[in-house]
Amino acid sequence: MEGFGVHTSMWTMHWDRAGAERTIPAAAAYKMDFIEIALLNTAIVDAGHTRTLLEKHTMRAICSLGLPKANWASVNPDGAAAHLIDAIDTAAAMGAEALTGVTYGGIGERTGLPPSAAEYDNIARALEAAARHAKSKGMLFGIEPVNRYETHLINTGAQAKWMIEKVGVDNMFIHLDTYHMNIEEKGAGNGILDARDHLRYIHLSESDRGTPGWGTCDWDEIFATLAAIGFRGGLAMESFINMPPEVGYGLAVWRPVARDFGEVMDNGLPFLRGKARQYRLI
Amino acid sequence: MEGFGVHTSMWTMHWDRAGAERTIPAAAAYKMDFIEIALLNTAIVDAGHTRTLLEKHTMRAICSLGLPKANWASVNPDGAAAHLIDAIDTAAAMGAEALTGVTYGGIGERTGLPPSAAEYDNIARALEAAARHAKSKGMLFGIEPVNRYETHLINTGAQAKWMIEKVGVDNMFIHLDTYHMNIEEKGAGNGILDARDHLRYIHLSESDRGTPGWGTCDWDEIFATLAAIGFRGGLAMESFINMPPEVGYGLAVWRPVARDFGEVMDNGLPFLRGKARQYRLI
Amino acid sequence: MEGFGVHTSMWTMHWDRAGAERTIPAAAAYKMDFIEIALLNTAIVDAGHTRTLLEKHTMRAICSLGLPKANWASVNPDGAAAHLIDAIDTAAAMGAEALTGVTYGGIGERTGLPPSAAEYDNIARALEAAARHAKSKGMLFGIEPVNRYETHLINTGAQAKWMIEKVGVDNMFIHLDTYHMNIEEKGAGNGILDARDHLRYIHLSESDRGTPGWGTCDWDEIFATLAAIGFRGGLAMESFINMPPEVGYGLAVWRPVARDFGEVMDNGLPFLRGKARQYRLI
Amino acid sequence: MEGFGVHTSMWTMHWDRAGAERTIPAAAAYKMDFIEIALLNTAIVDAGHTRTLLEKHTMRAICSLGLPKANWASVNPDGAAAHLIDAIDTAAAMGAEALTGVTYGGIGERTGLPPSAAEYDNIARALEAAARHAKSKGMLFGIEPVNRYETHLINTGAQAKWMIEKVGVDNMFIHLDTYHMNIEEKGAGNGILDARDHLRYIHLSESDRGTPGWGTCDWDEIFATLAAIGFRGGLAMESFINMPPEVGYGLAVWRPVARDFGEVMDNGLPFLRGKARQYRLI
Repeated sequence: MEGFGVHTSMWTMHWDRAGAERTIPAAAAYKMDFIEIALLNTAIVDAGHTRTLLEKHTMRAICSLGLPKANWASVNPDGAAAHLIDAIDTAAAMGAEALTGVTYGGIGERTGLPPSAAEYDNIARALEAAARHAKSKGMLFGIEPVNRYETHLINTGAQAKWMIEKVGVDNMFIHLDTYHMNIEEKGAGNGILDARDHLRYIHLSESDRGTPGWGTCDWDEIFATLAAIGFRGGLAMESFINMPPEVGYGLAVWRPVARDFGEVMDNGLPFLRGKARQYRLI
Repeated sequence: MEGFGVHTSMWTMHWDRAGAERTIPAAAAYKMDFIEIALLNTAIVDAGHTRTLLEKHTMRAICSLGLPKANWASVNPDGAAAHLIDAIDTAAAMGAEALTGVTYGGIGERTGLPPSAAEYDNIARALEAAARHAKSKGMLFGIEPVNRYETHLINTGAQAKWMIEKVGVDNMFIHLDTYHMNIEEKGAGNGILDARDHLRYIHLSESDRGTPGWGTCDWDEIFATLAAIGFRGGLAMESFINMPPEVGYGLAVWRPVARDFGEVMDNGLPFLRGKARQYRLI
Repeated sequence: MEGFGVHTSMWTMHWDRAGAERTIPAAAAYKMDFIEIALLNTAIVDAGHTRTLLEKHTMRAICSLGLPKANWASVNPDGAAAHLIDAIDTAAAMGAEALTGVTYGGIGERTGLPPSAAEYDNIARALEAAARHAKSKGMLFGIEPVNRYETHLINTGAQAKWMIEKVGVDNMFIHLDTYHMNIEEKGAGNGILDARDHLRYIHLSESDRGTPGWGTCDWDEIFATLAAIGFRGGLAMESFINMPPEVGYGLAVWRPVARDFGEVMDNGLPFLRGKARQYRLI
Repeated sequence: MEGFGVHTSMWTMHWDRAGAERTIPAAAAYKMDFIEIALLNTAIVDAGHTRTLLEKHTMRAICSLGLPKANWASVNPDGAAAHLIDAIDTAAAMGAEALTGVTYGGIGERTGLPPSAAEYDNIARALEAAARHAKSKGMLFGIEPVNRYETHLINTGAQAKWMIEKVGVDNMFIHLDTYHMNIEEKGAGNGILDARDHLRYIHLSESDRGTPGWGTCDWDEIFATLAAIGFRGGLAMESFINMPPEVGYGLAVWRPVARDFGEVMDNGLPFLRGKARQYRLI
């Protein structure tokens, strides 16, 4: 949970053996400190195989997910807890350091109404069970606020802090994302300030989820505030250029938001690394 | 379609006689050049009554809407055209200068797939009929790109330009919105540049739809680019602090994005007017 | 050295009895927590009279200056020390909390060459004497980096930190200025980060020294970084609309950079206070 | 006067045969469309030799200068005109397209007072003679507003426009510089808007004259406004990492503002070219 990494969506959204074999050496070639693996379906994952590849390439890993509708924590906390515990077990078997993401619900979950106390109580119950299980495995457990269209439940750093303090298990952390903050926070700096007590991970994602440095995110404000709070967590580049339809729906990416893989890796990646170095974060 | 105005959501989302009576004098007291009236349900509107009030307060009006699911243009172009023609008739009876908004579909419309050629053909057919009808009434007819979560169909200035040129009726115009551009465009300046040939109206809405000046929109870039293209259309402040649930769903506003009406009108309004004057747009 | 204040140049640059009588009630009417008084010529100051007025209006004070050419610390450290000690005595007699500003040299001092070790040694000697004297009076003693045209000696937060640590007297502090940072730092956030260990005071001055909020300073980055480092020092609005020629030369203000006093106080002041509140700094 | 070029200060400030031989092939290797040559001393220039090298490398050229104190136009218009005419003759012999820069005075010229009508009349007289001579050679003739510390005479785009219209010779143009605009204009966009009628050349220089993309300039606002006004002139990267003392004085660069040549060329140059392409300016 430190250094500069990348979400593996740059190479695959199917983390089977072929996906792992394509991705891990490629990320190592870009000198990533860690990768973030989307655990959308643990059934296709060969955790031992991933662990071996990670060790071979001296690569660290974080896992992330959103919950399927049947297991949304707001309505089915026991299903959510079971789903999260399964994912934590898979992540632990890979040697991952944390499970994070929209661990409290679905990407695209909405009732059409503001969140209710009952929904939050259910979520807290599921998160507590999952966080305790992660702790027993020596792992951290994160929650990622996402924008109002992807959930009605946790949109801001302030809400994430409130939820973590409601749950009260000490391996929980906030995972911010600059793309979502650009919509939800009154300045990305404010989101970072609100989250600072629990912030250990951040997605560096441009305002349109395309090439970092080509959108509306105020990267100097983001990096200056991270440096000023003494942030020492993981910085993960995220860009969605390459989505299978079942993922595209939640993310609502309907057109290419970057020209291609090369534009992101040859322009966006050096831009982000340069800024992170300018602010002495890596 | 010039000067500085405001979306009437600041006062009401129900444009019945009471709504009109509350709103028009209030907007006049804030020295608005025009108001934008949401025509969500023409059945409750007394157009003659609105016209009388507008004339009494020397206030101009623009009408806007999104289509109900039964009449989405992508799947039911005839229903869409009939719905739009009804709204145009009501707007004309009020004395409004234009009908605009998500005139091509629903706010919240998504199929889960990228847009198809058939959907766009249907939309073009409905828009052509509506634009011709508006023209017969001496009105302009606009389309507003909205973000990827509110539609999969028209998210950017470039897409709106393409659609208008596909339809080919000369009273059509592009209606941009800074809130949506902050998510979709590679810089709001780029959105304005792409739309410039047809741009006649813009919503000035902060990145979280709260108090203008307190979010992530780059207002200097927005106003400088508008000034540089010689923009002479309408500037409409939009903030959603006060949403009935049926509107809140499409807009996905689940929490107060501004403290209250006063924060928007006492801070955001002077901020926007000051910037518009600094760039000599009003 | 906390709260929100203003440089008294908004009202006068001549701190005689008339200047004090015009300024202190006016600053109190704008609800300032403190004022910054330019001690350009202690001979015209009636310190007891100022103290009485400050107490009457429950107003705190900071004093500031630049050194006259005869007493530049780089070439005449003893003259500089004597000049600073006289100013400290006057400031102490007023009840001021600190002496700060370009205490290490002249506003406009330049040799045409990069700074030399001998110049810095002389400066350190003068500053040490002055800081110790200020300490004996219970006062803080600051140094303000200014831009490359106003001095060749201390332009950045990093240089100010280096000088304070070279002098090694613990009542010294860094006094930043957003106008100068906008020219010298690789982002204002970086200047604040470099200065953070000793930062206790900051001038909030726009990029052209005109109306705050109308220039190129990135105020969100500035306030977010200040909030993130836990800044608890003084925030002082500074605008130079009203300069006598002998001051104008060093500052190089040749034209009105704001329309008038009202533009700064009615637009710039609410803008800065609003942002300071948004970031919970006041 | 179109395309993307570079100020030759990246390689030399002495335009003798050796300087030309070092610079022109190097600029060609970076695929520059043109170079800007500082004509500080025409006596060392071998114009025919430069012309041959330019032709060999298919490189276009612009020349620039500031006036020496003996020939400041504000006090010695005839001396200024003679100096400019000599420089124009040298530039013409090289095959340069324009002479530009601080053609109206010295870099560092200041009287300590605001500009006077007599100074401006003298300047207009010198500029008229020089512009007519340039016209007779088929060349353009530019004036560059610089910041308040480098001159008291022409600091803004609005002042440059006023001067050009006062002179009234139609081969004159405004040459902006983002470094100076960052200090003087109420947003770089405003400076571009004020200058637009005569704008044909712009220095792309970061806020500290270091690596473009690492400072406080709002490059999206700059490029969006240029694109919006339909700018078709020359874009010239300028960075001052490498100054002889006699030039350093006017520019007041006392410390390295970039790590080295490589930092500017490997980071700043791709950044600027990328943004220029994003806004379709090259």
